[in-house]
Amino acid sequence: MIATKAYAAQSAITPLAPYDFERRDVRPDDVQIEILYCGVCHSDLHQIRNEWGGSIYPMVPGHEIVGKVVNVGSNVTKFKVGDIAGVGVLIDSCRVCDHCKQDLENYCVEGMTGTYNGYERDKKTIAQGGYSTQIVVDEKYTLKISPNADLKGVAPLLCAGITTYSPLRYVGVKEGTKVGVVGLGGLGHMGVKFAASFGAEVTMLSTSKSKEADAKKLGAHNFALTTDAEGMKKYHNYFDVILDTASANHSYEQYLDLLALNGKLIVVGLPEQPSQVGAFKLLNNRRSIIGSMIGGLKETQEMLDYCAEKNITADVEVINIQDVNDAYERMLKGDVRYRFVIDIASLK
Amino acid sequence: MIATKAYAAQSAITPLAPYDFERRDVRPDDVQIEILYCGVCHSDLHQIRNEWGGSIYPMVPGHEIVGKVVNVGSNVTKFKVGDIAGVGVLIDSCRVCDHCKQDLENYCVEGMTGTYNGYERDKKTIAQGGYSTQIVVDEKYTLKISPNADLKGVAPLLCAGITTYSPLRYVGVKEGTKVGVVGLGGLGHMGVKFAASFGAEVTMLSTSKSKEADAKKLGAHNFALTTDAEGMKKYHNYFDVILDTASANHSYEQYLDLLALNGKLIVVGLPEQPSQVGAFKLLNNRRSIIGSMIGGLKETQEMLDYCAEKNITADVEVINIQDVNDAYERMLKGDVRYRFVIDIASLK
Repeated sequence: MIATKAYAAQSAITPLAPYDFERRDVRPDDVQIEILYCGVCHSDLHQIRNEWGGSIYPMVPGHEIVGKVVNVGSNVTKFKVGDIAGVGVLIDSCRVCDHCKQDLENYCVEGMTGTYNGYERDKKTIAQGGYSTQIVVDEKYTLKISPNADLKGVAPLLCAGITTYSPLRYVGVKEGTKVGVVGLGGLGHMGVKFAASFGAEVTMLSTSKSKEADAKKLGAHNFALTTDAEGMKKYHNYFDVILDTASANHSYEQYLDLLALNGKLIVVGLPEQPSQVGAFKLLNNRRSIIGSMIGGLKETQEMLDYCAEKNITADVEVINIQDVNDAYERMLKGDVRYRFVIDIASLK
Repeated sequence: MIATKAYAAQSAITPLAPYDFERRDVRPDDVQIEILYCGVCHSDLHQIRNEWGGSIYPMVPGHEIVGKVVNVGSNVTKFKVGDIAGVGVLIDSCRVCDHCKQDLENYCVEGMTGTYNGYERDKKTIAQGGYSTQIVVDEKYTLKISPNADLKGVAPLLCAGITTYSPLRYVGVKEGTKVGVVGLGGLGHMGVKFAASFGAEVTMLSTSKSKEADAKKLGAHNFALTTDAEGMKKYHNYFDVILDTASANHSYEQYLDLLALNGKLIVVGLPEQPSQVGAFKLLNNRRSIIGSMIGGLKETQEMLDYCAEKNITADVEVINIQDVNDAYERMLKGDVRYRFVIDIASLK
């Protein structure tokens, strides 16, 4: 067994604190990764606090993991010791269902095995995430990462990146597509970067004028202040696609009005409360609302390779793990540009 | 001007009653149709009773119109006197916007001109519908109908038919697609017929076991009693497409759970109240909700030709216009198989 230092939540109401545990020994198909960086995702906090229900403790969160391969099993072909590897939101799945066979393990019929806050496929080992020094994962669920990349900026690609890349590809965003992005956090800022890189005309939709300069720096062409009813008129029936990354409770209806013919509202955030949706706004312009949840392994690798080629990384603020509880408070206030990433060296 | 007998509502709270008015004289591009049959659509009642707001009185409802051409303007090429012609939900549109140019006049940017309960493009003439002896419509907005068809069963194709045909085509229903249909009224029964004719595996989703035999007679392969929680388990994550034709207030969420990977809930009914929609149900399986509103002229003609070729018509109950108010009451109770059609001879 592999001694591992980590930070864990012991309950929904206790802050993260140091926690030592052991990872399994490397099996023939496994890769052992010494973690270098782990991103801080809003869903970490939702789960630590049991806001979606069913949380399992102790919980070591973290599913935006980048590190160095320090050991490989005898069957491993994709990695050798010294390579840079990534682990995202899932570490396993049933591997035999139709969805797994379509490289959509994220929609595994049996349910994917999440990187943390769940049980591994043995149904008894609690999967523990990336706020830790080591992780051992089957190579099939491990991503290859260019050694030349800025690794702290790569970590958030494993969740925030693929979660926005996948649906933008799914709905066919390309040169000239009019894309609106709601929410300028970890997901939203990646949505802006990807949509712009695909050649779309990107508009940041925000309630706060203060986001304008930043959005444009990230690649947005336009900024729409959604509280300005008069100014919003030009955006009625305007967008082909709106990527809604907000995870606070909010209404989808306000964005439906902004969609053009065949316009698609992509929902990737997970607010606790449902939204009201009226039929008239859907029927008008043949609009749709589409949910999307991260992405499969193949597409995640495609996204990482695309980012390496296009030199796309997340904009991050690196923190020590000792500061993670404060970082959550700042994240809740939107006070982060745009993703906290933990320097795991601070754990050692 | 052309003397026309009709039935009209004079207000939201008065029953339909005899009403005489005049249609415009035939212009160069117009077709004058002596109406033979007009279907009774649930939206007729919504609008008579001003349930969607903004109703204009006097209102002659009816937008499922079939009749005989009795006069044509000098520019008309598509019709000659004696032909059978149809008029559906729209009688005009701006003709120059992007949507009109894509043959999607139903989504005209300026707003389509409805067959009734609106103003014609002169902005002063109230458009009056098909519960009347005559109608005059530009040939571009008039459909060709096979003289061999059973005309009373063709009338409902002009709304119920195209409203279900168009979205089933839009989402690509074909051989083997698993399609659920919600609601076995005018729209639903056409949805079953079309989906089955496209080669789909069709399941009727209903709260009433009494619908099973009828649904199967119409072409459904399966019947799912939605109130039977145990029996519904096999339909979780099952359907590629669910066509929701219900126009009473209801929740979309119960149907989202039934959708498989990339599953699509098509909404064509217009309940007054919005539904709640939670993000988890959308993200799971990358599901979507799509609205669809009737169809354009080109696709409506395609649908009519398809129906003529496949011998598809609506199942109707023919009534005299004097019985229309009673028919509304029966329609509200779901006591119609599956569309009332007015024999306009009863008006003369």
